[in-house]
Amino acid sequence: MQTDKVIRILPLGGLGEIGKNMLLVEYDNDGLIIDSGIMFPENDMLGIDYIIPDYSYIVDRQDELTIHGILITHGHEDHIGAIGHVLSAIPAPVYATALTAGLMEIKMRQAGHADHPLHVFKAGDVLDVGPFSVETFHVCHSIPDAVGFGINTPLGLLVHSGDFKFDHTPVDGWSPDFAKLAEFSQRGVLALMADSTNADHAGWTPSEMIINEAFDSVFQQAEGRIIVATFASLISRIQQVATAALRFNRKMAIAGHSMIEYIKVATRLGYIDLPKDLVISIDQAKKLPPEQVVIMATGTQGEPTAVLGRLAWGRHRQLQIEPGDTVIMSAHPIPGNEELVHRTINKLIQRGAHVIYDPIASVHVSGHASQEELKLLHHLLRPRFFIPVHGELRHLTQHSLLAQTMGMSPENIAVVENGTEILVTSDSLIVGERVPGGYVFVDGTGVGDVGPIVMHDREILARDGFVIAQVLIDETTGDLIETPTILSRGFVFLREASGLIETAQCLIEETIAASQGKDLKTAVENALTRLFYNETKRRPMIFALVSEV
Amino acid sequence: MQTDKVIRILPLGGLGEIGKNMLLVEYDNDGLIIDSGIMFPENDMLGIDYIIPDYSYIVDRQDELTIHGILITHGHEDHIGAIGHVLSAIPAPVYATALTAGLMEIKMRQAGHADHPLHVFKAGDVLDVGPFSVETFHVCHSIPDAVGFGINTPLGLLVHSGDFKFDHTPVDGWSPDFAKLAEFSQRGVLALMADSTNADHAGWTPSEMIINEAFDSVFQQAEGRIIVATFASLISRIQQVATAALRFNRKMAIAGHSMIEYIKVATRLGYIDLPKDLVISIDQAKKLPPEQVVIMATGTQGEPTAVLGRLAWGRHRQLQIEPGDTVIMSAHPIPGNEELVHRTINKLIQRGAHVIYDPIASVHVSGHASQEELKLLHHLLRPRFFIPVHGELRHLTQHSLLAQTMGMSPENIAVVENGTEILVTSDSLIVGERVPGGYVFVDGTGVGDVGPIVMHDREILARDGFVIAQVLIDETTGDLIETPTILSRGFVFLREASGLIETAQCLIEETIAASQGKDLKTAVENALTRLFYNETKRRPMIFALVSEV
Repeated sequence: MQTDKVIRILPLGGLGEIGKNMLLVEYDNDGLIIDSGIMFPENDMLGIDYIIPDYSYIVDRQDELTIHGILITHGHEDHIGAIGHVLSAIPAPVYATALTAGLMEIKMRQAGHADHPLHVFKAGDVLDVGPFSVETFHVCHSIPDAVGFGINTPLGLLVHSGDFKFDHTPVDGWSPDFAKLAEFSQRGVLALMADSTNADHAGWTPSEMIINEAFDSVFQQAEGRIIVATFASLISRIQQVATAALRFNRKMAIAGHSMIEYIKVATRLGYIDLPKDLVISIDQAKKLPPEQVVIMATGTQGEPTAVLGRLAWGRHRQLQIEPGDTVIMSAHPIPGNEELVHRTINKLIQRGAHVIYDPIASVHVSGHASQEELKLLHHLLRPRFFIPVHGELRHLTQHSLLAQTMGMSPENIAVVENGTEILVTSDSLIVGERVPGGYVFVDGTGVGDVGPIVMHDREILARDGFVIAQVLIDETTGDLIETPTILSRGFVFLREASGLIETAQCLIEETIAASQGKDLKTAVENALTRLFYNETKRRPMIFALVSEV
Repeated sequence: MQTDKVIRILPLGGLGEIGKNMLLVEYDNDGLIIDSGIMFPENDMLGIDYIIPDYSYIVDRQDELTIHGILITHGHEDHIGAIGHVLSAIPAPVYATALTAGLMEIKMRQAGHADHPLHVFKAGDVLDVGPFSVETFHVCHSIPDAVGFGINTPLGLLVHSGDFKFDHTPVDGWSPDFAKLAEFSQRGVLALMADSTNADHAGWTPSEMIINEAFDSVFQQAEGRIIVATFASLISRIQQVATAALRFNRKMAIAGHSMIEYIKVATRLGYIDLPKDLVISIDQAKKLPPEQVVIMATGTQGEPTAVLGRLAWGRHRQLQIEPGDTVIMSAHPIPGNEELVHRTINKLIQRGAHVIYDPIASVHVSGHASQEELKLLHHLLRPRFFIPVHGELRHLTQHSLLAQTMGMSPENIAVVENGTEILVTSDSLIVGERVPGGYVFVDGTGVGDVGPIVMHDREILARDGFVIAQVLIDETTGDLIETPTILSRGFVFLREASGLIETAQCLIEETIAASQGKDLKTAVENALTRLFYNETKRRPMIFALVSEV
């Protein structure tokens, strides 16, 4: 096997979903990147703002490997959020559909890449990305203008589904491009990379249209204001609320900076149609009778600083929940956010709101294909090789099993994690090496400086806090100059622990008297560790600052 | 209204589920307590081991209020886990069924209450608890020997469902006591308190029996070892695995201290029947061919120290996952544990296991009644008043709406949160006052000493760590004696931040030189806060220890 006659596929990203934030496709030292997104931190990644893929492997190889383009499937944060970081290291031209580009421009400007080449294409266009001819095709997802890619390589056609569902009745009327998929199949598909997010869900993901019924029923019954919370990027849902508002003679106000921004971009580019006299300001909404108002809001994940969080905790500047309000949670909790979301719902109820959420009513549907849709994708394309992507390892595994039930042989499927290369030739699929690196934490302006050591310290501090003892010793006599100062946070409630602190001070004095000047620091730290553990069964970080003066 | 002719009902417990951990029923200064459980901390309750109800209101009123008994519905931790704490403050006799009592004895012994009166009753028995005659009745739940209570008061009969489901084909063959419920109804039920956990689930919770089918199918297909993880207390599930093991000629080994303990108690008291030659040790299991082995294990919630967590991370002393193993996750993640559970599944797959979990197969069912069962309960009992309990506010609200769809008028339903009293007379239901107190954090041996201040400090430390600057000043000259010492953890990776630390040291020197001896501590802390925020956009805790020597 000549290694230059091999397509290398390398998924990169966080430790959760595979190939979702970034994917490298490479042939004969020519490469293209699909997506440049961020991952949100898990609950135990303390203090981390977000996570970006570790693309140092690509950067390190820039002498030999040319990246001809960064192709974006759609405008969600986990696909575009890292573009500012990526362009600083890999200044390749960016290709995106109009809405996606509109959302990316803001990010690129903020990161100082306002003048960077950003090519806008329409689904169906063919892009020349270096030596690769890339055929784009429309898919349905929970944001408009999402696409997948057919990448022509000298060895054959690679198809990447992007995040998708097969919605036969999408809100914007723009169905998936089945014809293109069938045409790919006629030409022969070498390898398929496909969304696995819902590979463990039986059946067919319901169409966005079913939301209309649920909205109708809620709008019919609601006697007061209606507040609909959804993702700022879920443009079609906002359109559905607008349509319901028109039908039921309500005016619509928008709350939440990001949602206002998304609507602005989507309106300018024609992805949403909100009649002029439908939309009013929050202040205007407050003057109308409650039964004539619907408010669109952010905050479905229980974020305390988003609109719904502020409403739940009574901290919104302009609005407050009134008894009789109906709140529709038109989103599912992203795994890991369940607790916060449930707490938000309970708080809203506490303030008198009637809260509608799935499973109480079908006010949200997933944007990802379920098993029957995945089977249809496989049958439409009939790929020789299959690489499940976009999902955790458990989802990829299910997607692989699903392909096997349709007759694909296991050796034609490669399930890998981020950072493991897959080598595709015209007649083989091989799992390659793990490349160095993993993912990178971003905390404030620090990119990558928070690693396992800082994280481990934060865990200890979060659990039991710290104690610092300042010990000043007379350098001539070796005696304590003053009673040791004890500083502590996150360990015990100091106002009620004065006895324990005094005991610790006495113990330090005894320890110093007994240690005859030998390694005072360690002696004091050990003595305090024992004391605090015995008294509290807690293990704070303990430091002695011993100075001889 | 004479206040002594009022039944007071007071749910106590954590901030999540209402009346689950503890509930007080009181009439004319005579009281009884139902359950004494703990709540598990949420993800942002840093360092907390568990949470107990704040029963200080009961303790404070012990001169006027006599607690005649503590009645336990079943042996889950959220119903018995706080008994050691409770008995130290409220030494009333305890009433429990045999299995529940067996599990409580261990806790009571550990807490120094080995000799405390613990009355064992059989479901169906009538208990004389002070002036209250309490009729006990069997219910089905995810632990054997669960009961509900019919409490006879001078004003009428109160019925408490406990945690329950209506399983017509329970594994132990012991169906719910429908006859008793019907009889209650004939005599007239003044008020019903009923489990609301699944009040937002349509339909009827499937019987435990459907697990057998899923087990059969997995046991039939598995070619290697089978590892079944479930709750240690889910005795019926362990029985089902034993039965499947017998059917498919596998031996069964048990891994996990708590599960071994539960099986011991359940075996001694006759709640489980494991044939002698079925159960083998882990060491024996390792010598058998894999296809002859099933291992029962703890750790379904992703707990890193339980068996499944150790297996997933390769840290179990005796066992390790081998390619070809099949792992059955026979439990659902408790809300808040989703991330850890999914991570555990991914890690097990990484090690080569085939992992079966809901929704891939029906290997777990809930132990709580869904809407159709709740409707049946309401129709069987036809209570005058209804108090939904056991669930979050959102579940209680749904349960209330469900009762209203069955014709109950809203003023006959009281939805309250923990700490709010409900007053019931023979013809009225009134939401009373909020009593002082809430819930109590237990951290190590500290009960209640970790409050909002310590918790807030832990949050800051978890997010950005701390920095301490030790500044020694010559008391005569006012000059620095030595370069300030900077100690930091959880803020930046010190090995790569030496530049920042040196900048900070220079800044301290400049600040001291400029401040002319006035409030050096504040000046240094403010200067460092600004520096670190500008350089990193992080806000660690900052302290200056300034000593003049």
